[in-house]
Amino acid sequence: MLFEALGAELAELAGSPVVLQTAQGEVLDLIRGDTLLSASLWANIALAGLSTLLFVSMARGVRTSRARLIFGATILIPLVSLSSYLGMVSGLTAGLLEMPAGHALAGEQVFSQWGRYLTWTLSTPLILLALGLLAEADPVDVAAVIAADIGMCVTGLAAALVTSSYAFRWVFYIVSCTFFVVVLYALLVKWPSAADAAGTSEIFSTLRALTVVLWLGYPIVWAVGIEGFAIVDSAALTSWGYSILDIGAKYVFAYLLLSWVAGNEERLQETLTPGAVGVPSQSDD
Amino acid sequence: MLFEALGAELAELAGSPVVLQTAQGEVLDLIRGDTLLSASLWANIALAGLSTLLFVSMARGVRTSRARLIFGATILIPLVSLSSYLGMVSGLTAGLLEMPAGHALAGEQVFSQWGRYLTWTLSTPLILLALGLLAEADPVDVAAVIAADIGMCVTGLAAALVTSSYAFRWVFYIVSCTFFVVVLYALLVKWPSAADAAGTSEIFSTLRALTVVLWLGYPIVWAVGIEGFAIVDSAALTSWGYSILDIGAKYVFAYLLLSWVAGNEERLQETLTPGAVGVPSQSDD
Amino acid sequence: MLFEALGAELAELAGSPVVLQTAQGEVLDLIRGDTLLSASLWANIALAGLSTLLFVSMARGVRTSRARLIFGATILIPLVSLSSYLGMVSGLTAGLLEMPAGHALAGEQVFSQWGRYLTWTLSTPLILLALGLLAEADPVDVAAVIAADIGMCVTGLAAALVTSSYAFRWVFYIVSCTFFVVVLYALLVKWPSAADAAGTSEIFSTLRALTVVLWLGYPIVWAVGIEGFAIVDSAALTSWGYSILDIGAKYVFAYLLLSWVAGNEERLQETLTPGAVGVPSQSDD
Repeated sequence: MLFEALGAELAELAGSPVVLQTAQGEVLDLIRGDTLLSASLWANIALAGLSTLLFVSMARGVRTSRARLIFGATILIPLVSLSSYLGMVSGLTAGLLEMPAGHALAGEQVFSQWGRYLTWTLSTPLILLALGLLAEADPVDVAAVIAADIGMCVTGLAAALVTSSYAFRWVFYIVSCTFFVVVLYALLVKWPSAADAAGTSEIFSTLRALTVVLWLGYPIVWAVGIEGFAIVDSAALTSWGYSILDIGAKYVFAYLLLSWVAGNEERLQETLTPGAVGVPSQSDD
Repeated sequence: MLFEALGAELAELAGSPVVLQTAQGEVLDLIRGDTLLSASLWANIALAGLSTLLFVSMARGVRTSRARLIFGATILIPLVSLSSYLGMVSGLTAGLLEMPAGHALAGEQVFSQWGRYLTWTLSTPLILLALGLLAEADPVDVAAVIAADIGMCVTGLAAALVTSSYAFRWVFYIVSCTFFVVVLYALLVKWPSAADAAGTSEIFSTLRALTVVLWLGYPIVWAVGIEGFAIVDSAALTSWGYSILDIGAKYVFAYLLLSWVAGNEERLQETLTPGAVGVPSQSDD
Repeated sequence: MLFEALGAELAELAGSPVVLQTAQGEVLDLIRGDTLLSASLWANIALAGLSTLLFVSMARGVRTSRARLIFGATILIPLVSLSSYLGMVSGLTAGLLEMPAGHALAGEQVFSQWGRYLTWTLSTPLILLALGLLAEADPVDVAAVIAADIGMCVTGLAAALVTSSYAFRWVFYIVSCTFFVVVLYALLVKWPSAADAAGTSEIFSTLRALTVVLWLGYPIVWAVGIEGFAIVDSAALTSWGYSILDIGAKYVFAYLLLSWVAGNEERLQETLTPGAVGVPSQSDD
């Protein structure tokens, strides 16, 4: 009967991110009702906000053009993260997805924070841009690595959203990891020599190690958490996994970078190969 | 009962951009039925089309490589604007959103032209690219400013689409304005010195003033219009607000820029710092 | 009555990409049930995967920095294509759209692979980036051409998704073709002289010819296929049209480029204008 058909259709809809984007209010209530989950999001909103304010205050003492450029690009990292967490906490970019047959939670509604993957397409390129600037890597090289990085985030988003088949979730996961290998290759093999030439290899090595180790954590959280094998069968703990990684990979990363830049302005100025980023550095004051 | 649950669910759906993207035909009828609203969209479609044709005809007299590059990038501005208005007028990227409690029009269906925010992520970077080219700003600097600009547009889109809570609409609005401050900093503090060095400070100042003043208008229209405080409680007048700003910030901006470029080809050629944009300028004829 | 209203509303929803994104499982079944359609997608998944593996094995013999950069950027092309086809075959980025009055299949549900247009926004910029690198075109010029290319893909997506009016489908088609003209202008008029200067004009001419001829095929398939005039009234044949073009424009293109790069490393190294892409070429070994 039509009536039953409607019910079936709506049940099917319930498994989609779209309709639950729709039902923003419902997601908002769900998050509000889970203190641990709520805390994983609000903790990052608070830290992202404080980081932004801290970095702006640190920027006031910076004088040289190149240092200011790195500050400008890096301040965007916590700002994008703030936007990302606001999107999830408001219910705009999170929702419930019905897992397909084969998944540990098959047929159940799993809370998916798909907004994370979406905003990573903007925040992770900024991190790579900052690392590329520091290493004085070839701009076209940076562009290619950012393209691989966007491929990684978009296929990660697809892995999170595919509900038609369990196998496809893991196929997208593997493709996403393949893009990640291209990014790792640049970070581990190509850019270090550029950083050597630029005289920034010490701080570059630190930030690269931080980035490589923490970024490896994201696919592990996905695999272990409720979207993957569901070994950790908790939306709140999965969310905390990502949130803790974000704290290290975004705010700590940005703080270490900016502290070094603030303390090494003259060195940064000297080591700049003229033309490397297009225009000789100059003071704007 | 299931029947009532279905009704409630559908009522909820009705408040989403998604379902009304869906109901493109309905939006198309709504726009057709409101002459003032229709005019605000079609006026820009006509002006964007005419601007494109005008700029193409102006481009025929341009000989030097750098001037042609600026023409090529600038012609895209009205073309993207044309696409944006076609998306809204066809009902593809506009819809009705139910405003949350706290909003002046709480519970009412408000006409949202969310396609504007989406296409600004492509058109505003082109404007910044043109300004950056003119000022011969560092390409990496331009990239960072464009990243801030995309952050501004995407959080603006979020402010327009969030309907779960009135407070979150304004939180996104504030975050969007924060990204805007980063863009303003580049336009007002950093790039002018680059423009001085490039010998283009006169036209750069004019275009910068036009851009800063008009871009400040957009958040004002949002705050005053139906999506914000709804002091102006009219979808058509809100739409006209944006449309008039677009006329100045896009077509007048592009016309002033291209007129200057067409009349100052040799000067532009001379002042080019070799290597500033990668490759020495050359005539392609 | 409410009951009938619900039915009408759902029928309307059925015409949207969104709800059928939703109904991923349904699309998955539809594709599985059509062998010819399935084959058009799986053939490309297989070829994209094999191309990636082949290019990685070819990359192992490459020693110079610039050649490695071109390899890195080019390997992303089949990887993005792989992701695109996985998205469609899993039902995530394909769906049924009800065609508007005026269309040859008006009122019928037409199978739309809208994910193609979405992923072209990432894959076609990579192709242009590779061509720009080869020709040593001005990086800002490459950025402007990529902006036009993204405009072309996004308006192509709009042409595919607009169902409110038949006329708007063709208006978007024409705007998309206009963006294409800007891309063609760069490929045919501007970049060849840069490639001459870079000493890569032979391979650039071959790849440019391949790209221009095959890219012209896409709007033809759209016009002739089920989304346009429906002269070829078959979802499977339309899909094969795109799939065959993709084989030439992506895997053959990338193979020709990388074979040439692998065999002309020293020449590529010598002809590099220092500073053209920012940093003097260097060996990373």
